[in-house]
Amino acid sequence: PVYAATGLDVWTMMNQAAAEVGAVNLGQGFMSFPPKEFITRAAQKALEENAHNQYAPPRGRPALLEQVAARFGLRLGRPIDTASEISIHAGANEALLSVFTAFLTHGQGEEVIVMEPAFDQYAPNIAMAGGTTVYVPLRAQAPADAVMSSNDWKLDMAELEAAVTPKTRIIVLNTPHNPVGKVFTRPELEQIGAVAERHNLLIIADEVYEHLTFAREHLSIASLPRMWDRTVTVGSAGKLLGVTGWRVGWAVGPHALIQPTLAAHTRIVFTTNTPLQEGVAAAMREASANGFYETQRSEYQHRRDRLMAIFDDVGLPYVVPDGAYYLLVNAAAVRMPEDYPFPAAIADRGPNFRLAYYFVREFGVSGIPPAEFYCEPHRALAGDYVRFAFCKTDEGLDAAAAALQKLK
Amino acid sequence: PVYAATGLDVWTMMNQAAAEVGAVNLGQGFMSFPPKEFITRAAQKALEENAHNQYAPPRGRPALLEQVAARFGLRLGRPIDTASEISIHAGANEALLSVFTAFLTHGQGEEVIVMEPAFDQYAPNIAMAGGTTVYVPLRAQAPADAVMSSNDWKLDMAELEAAVTPKTRIIVLNTPHNPVGKVFTRPELEQIGAVAERHNLLIIADEVYEHLTFAREHLSIASLPRMWDRTVTVGSAGKLLGVTGWRVGWAVGPHALIQPTLAAHTRIVFTTNTPLQEGVAAAMREASANGFYETQRSEYQHRRDRLMAIFDDVGLPYVVPDGAYYLLVNAAAVRMPEDYPFPAAIADRGPNFRLAYYFVREFGVSGIPPAEFYCEPHRALAGDYVRFAFCKTDEGLDAAAAALQKLK
Ligand SMILES: CSCCC(=O)C(=O)O
Ligand SMILES: CSCCC(=O)C(=O)O
Repeated sequence: PVYAATGLDVWTMMNQAAAEVGAVNLGQGFMSFPPKEFITRAAQKALEENAHNQYAPPRGRPALLEQVAARFGLRLGRPIDTASEISIHAGANEALLSVFTAFLTHGQGEEVIVMEPAFDQYAPNIAMAGGTTVYVPLRAQAPADAVMSSNDWKLDMAELEAAVTPKTRIIVLNTPHNPVGKVFTRPELEQIGAVAERHNLLIIADEVYEHLTFAREHLSIASLPRMWDRTVTVGSAGKLLGVTGWRVGWAVGPHALIQPTLAAHTRIVFTTNTPLQEGVAAAMREASANGFYETQRSEYQHRRDRLMAIFDDVGLPYVVPDGAYYLLVNAAAVRMPEDYPFPAAIADRGPNFRLAYYFVREFGVSGIPPAEFYCEPHRALAGDYVRFAFCKTDEGLDAAAAALQKLK
Repeated sequence: PVYAATGLDVWTMMNQAAAEVGAVNLGQGFMSFPPKEFITRAAQKALEENAHNQYAPPRGRPALLEQVAARFGLRLGRPIDTASEISIHAGANEALLSVFTAFLTHGQGEEVIVMEPAFDQYAPNIAMAGGTTVYVPLRAQAPADAVMSSNDWKLDMAELEAAVTPKTRIIVLNTPHNPVGKVFTRPELEQIGAVAERHNLLIIADEVYEHLTFAREHLSIASLPRMWDRTVTVGSAGKLLGVTGWRVGWAVGPHALIQPTLAAHTRIVFTTNTPLQEGVAAAMREASANGFYETQRSEYQHRRDRLMAIFDDVGLPYVVPDGAYYLLVNAAAVRMPEDYPFPAAIADRGPNFRLAYYFVREFGVSGIPPAEFYCEPHRALAGDYVRFAFCKTDEGLDAAAAALQKLK
């Protein structure tokens, strides 16, 4: 019932605000371009065969388990057992909820460490499973009034370790990071891993943007020495193939961690939709063969560079993302009139929500207020940032460029 | 973590047992025939358009909300507001979990009344949301050694009322009923509704088999006087269209009940897959126009009658189902050798599991042990019943008939 109190989620709120004024929607991270045809063709074909319409095994369809194993096996440098080390989920979100449900118990006061800013589904998912979220900030180590690198955002390892209590069970690690765009380095991952080892914690590695890195390679913490046994890595077909509406994700890890995850999944949704599991499997097979991932990465690099150039042009500094598809833009230079008529639902949620709302109303480009990615007492850390997504068409980015001329 | 302890679910267990001996699988309720072509074509078309691949609104795609509203509006006799009175879910299971999550609170000792035998996902879903399941039995009022009507299974209304405590929040009502096949009558629904009113309880009406009734018409409790405001009705596209693997379901009810349900859904899976929502919407539109539901009902009536004739032929009595697609068969006449080599996982779960396992091994036809549908202390109430599903091909039923000759 705490979830009932949540009110309108930020995604729906900002999508509605964008629609109301016909704004360029750079808010929620969905693609504004269609997937490559071979991807939707793969799902069509699965449906054409008219043989993939009944319940999949709760763990997932064999064809997809194989593809996920092959992909993650490359990161890991060794084969993955499809019969015990993977489960397929109704999106990465449901994979995360399944892991939390599997490893947390209500009424025990167990704690999960999350790095702020943090994707806004973690905390409610942790709460549903009975856990308490403990936040450790990523802090920008460079002045906010100039362009900085996402790698300037650092986790203070002493602070991480200080956050551990006897109740701590899990560390959530999101790399590439939404919304910062940070791709954690090997030394950083080693230090996080060392903390997990010292205190015998699980690691949930949310790596849904693993295929989109620009400056440095993505590294899976599960591939580091001794980390496999304590890590569940979560991935997303929606993000990997540009079909966020397909709701197919996965969890990979040792049998001892995947077995309870699968048991929770079986109770949460029973199983994941069959035709799109087959579609994803066939599309992944084809994507590996046709160079899709390389093309996609360079397309995103181009989109990122274009969006950065747009904000250079209007003089707003930002955080250069090394991965994922979000740009944190510092809009401190935007002056909002004191008496601006904000709807109550926005005004109530503080200055960062007001800034994002003002931005969409006045400049016709919608972003997400990163305050949503901080817990209530830390909302101020969102500063004057607004998050803009660049998983968008060239036309959309051009339209944003035109609209933003008003800022000059 | 209680869910982690669950072990292998009965569905996977019996599917595996069937596969091991090449048995005719009349266990889990999935269709062994392909859906009508217009149904998979509808989903193919949605994919072909290559415009339905990103996140749906958490509430659901407008086209599907409209179809669900139209269908349920007929039951209710008045229009349904698609903007406030429906939410689309990743299967009926996730709809049920969302409702429980919305209305139960951990640590309060809240109780949910469920009629036994009961679909085996209710209790774990209630537990995940923090509730305790309280069971009230449906009791057969006729001798088990002869064919009886599913309507001979009665709920003792005094027993129902006696089960209510100050902690009771919800009654779960499943009609048509899995596994009994009972279709609750108007007087029964009125009496259940009266109990709910007297104690101010919510009703969750699991009506996923509403389209499959043979002897009496399905009646939605939400359509009875004063019941709408306290009822959430759950439905399933998988069951309605014969595509159990599509994982599209819905919840319908007053805004005050759907709003928290939607909030929970948004945290559990965020949203339901988009292409199959569009596919279901188009297929439902077509199905209403082409007489699909009538044809489907008479096909199922034929399958039901065929399966009953098969058990008549071998002399095992059963419960005549008025709805849904399951047949409870009394296999008391089957004598199992004392020293039969049961695997431990089966032997541990008691005589009813042993019976179902023996049946599949020795007669080559697999069913589900209804003991799974009773809580641990009530397992014995499953008696010598085995549940066989008739959502299966004529060839499958013929093969079952041939295999069962061994029983003569
Ligand atoms: C639940 S919103 C999903 C999209 C996303 O990941 C984002 O925009 O941050
Ligand atoms: C989770 S099993 C679903 C199939 C079904 O409803 C049944 O066989 O009872």
